[in-house]
Amino acid sequence: MRRNFHQQLEELKTQLMTMAYQVDRSFVDSIEAYRTADLDLSQRVIGAEIQINRMEREIDRLAIDLLAMEQPTAIDLRFILSIMRINSDLERIGDQAVSISTRVHELTSSPRYDFQVDIPLLASHAREMLTIAMRAFREGDDDLATTVLALDNEVDTMNAEAFTSLSRLIADQPGRAPQAMNMLIVSRNIERVADHATNIAEDVIFWRRGDDIRHAGGTH
Amino acid sequence: MRRNFHQQLEELKTQLMTMAYQVDRSFVDSIEAYRTADLDLSQRVIGAEIQINRMEREIDRLAIDLLAMEQPTAIDLRFILSIMRINSDLERIGDQAVSISTRVHELTSSPRYDFQVDIPLLASHAREMLTIAMRAFREGDDDLATTVLALDNEVDTMNAEAFTSLSRLIADQPGRAPQAMNMLIVSRNIERVADHATNIAEDVIFWRRGDDIRHAGGTH
Repeated sequence: MRRNFHQQLEELKTQLMTMAYQVDRSFVDSIEAYRTADLDLSQRVIGAEIQINRMEREIDRLAIDLLAMEQPTAIDLRFILSIMRINSDLERIGDQAVSISTRVHELTSSPRYDFQVDIPLLASHAREMLTIAMRAFREGDDDLATTVLALDNEVDTMNAEAFTSLSRLIADQPGRAPQAMNMLIVSRNIERVADHATNIAEDVIFWRRGDDIRHAGGTH
Repeated sequence: MRRNFHQQLEELKTQLMTMAYQVDRSFVDSIEAYRTADLDLSQRVIGAEIQINRMEREIDRLAIDLLAMEQPTAIDLRFILSIMRINSDLERIGDQAVSISTRVHELTSSPRYDFQVDIPLLASHAREMLTIAMRAFREGDDDLATTVLALDNEVDTMNAEAFTSLSRLIADQPGRAPQAMNMLIVSRNIERVADHATNIAEDVIFWRRGDDIRHAGGTH
């Protein structure tokens, strides 16, 4: 029975890694679709959401079944709870990818400009955080997970700068306002991806250490 | 032992209702601070976050202890898992209130205008969703919870209209661009509050029915 239980935990872990792979794919595609104004690619991201939602439900169901039937304690309990939380964060990253993809339609209906905000760079930072957080999960490496937390501040700073520079742009060249607002929304979407990656890292630390390190500084 | 367990469940429920009360207070205050450009009130909201974060950790700890020690199944298990999820959504609503409050500082540094977007109305819709969702939780009323889901579409529609009307405003009167962008961010914050209220309603349904109704239509 115990052996079977640990096989099921491994199965759960594998499913979550597959989910993470799909969500990462959607996020990367959404940014590429945005960068190149590629409507086909943005449609693929929107279409993939159904599959991601289905995976989320399946992982959740499996996790709850394990809780109910095996009644795990200590690190096994924390592992399953962490998986449920990470699952939820991954699905919400998928939502951000869909949100970014829906913006591509607005982009293509108006002429394109160069903007001061480097969306692909911002996105690559957020993606790096997600990659490290999921590697920390796969390897059960709580020290690696802590490195994600520092990166989040960087993304927040870049995003605050984006807001300022987009505001200035609109004041100087109001004709560009629709694109600037569009880009503002996308930069917020990316910031949320980074926030979810941070949550995932915190869940890895909770699983391995049993610490609840959220809002350790009092604010978050 | 069982009796004690159910007392602990009641205690958990009471703590979550207290948390909901605090978060609702912060949200209402943040909108009032925004509406009246009240810096003192916005500072109170920002200051209250520490307390909300502390409550979140405490509820989470209690819930995990109950899972580990009582190893509940079926509806008791779903109840505790729902509380953990609702707890997380409430804390994130608190984050939105803080985010709105930080915008008040920018508002007061520039002249105020009347805008086409009725932020207090949008906020009152989101708040109504939260109120109904938490009443459904308190009373264990899954039918009431389902009424929240329909309201979410309304808020999304209002928000899409806000984006359009703010874009138009900026194009016509670029001098108002900073406030318009500020308002765009706040309307997104409110939309997220509505999303979290929807999550809470879904958790109530999951608790009472055992159904996972998330993304029932394939997308969300």
